[in-house]
Amino acid sequence: MELLVTYDVDTTTPDGARRLRRVAKVCEAYGLRVQKSVFEIVCSDVDWMIMKKRLLDVIDGDQDSIRVYQMNAGALGRAQHLGRSPEAPHGAPLIY
Amino acid sequence: MELLVTYDVDTTTPDGARRLRRVAKVCEAYGLRVQKSVFEIVCSDVDWMIMKKRLLDVIDGDQDSIRVYQMNAGALGRAQHLGRSPEAPHGAPLIY
Repeated sequence: MELLVTYDVDTTTPDGARRLRRVAKVCEAYGLRVQKSVFEIVCSDVDWMIMKKRLLDVIDGDQDSIRVYQMNAGALGRAQHLGRSPEAPHGAPLIY
Repeated sequence: MELLVTYDVDTTTPDGARRLRRVAKVCEAYGLRVQKSVFEIVCSDVDWMIMKKRLLDVIDGDQDSIRVYQMNAGALGRAQHLGRSPEAPHGAPLIY
């Protein structure tokens, strides 16, 4: 499955910045960080269950929010980009 | 068309915070702000062309990035959410 994960956290606090680093670490195990708090994920249903549990362990449920969008196959690779280049190249097929 | 727009900008600077406010204003004309810099948009092809031009006028192309994902009809409404509730309710169909 292809997922787009977006994380909303206040990174002006040390705790928020730390949680963003941890969320990034969880997400980067399954995909690419294309913006500071946006991750393109390709994983199995089981991977997603594991990942979701890890994310819930990391975030502060009262302050942060994560949104997860299920994408069509290939939709991540067709994203349009405006402005500064993505930090990670994303031209190649998302196959691991 | 349904689009998901994510905006990466350094909001620790006054200029960055100002650009985020402007990007939000452009996006909110066509949809919902579901996180600080994530917008769910429902618009026509023509609306998107106008919106894209406005976004390019607002952002700093050397520092900021915007990613635009084309979504299947109804995919925005099926997003999963973890943590704090979205600022804007998003249960209703995205019809304007």
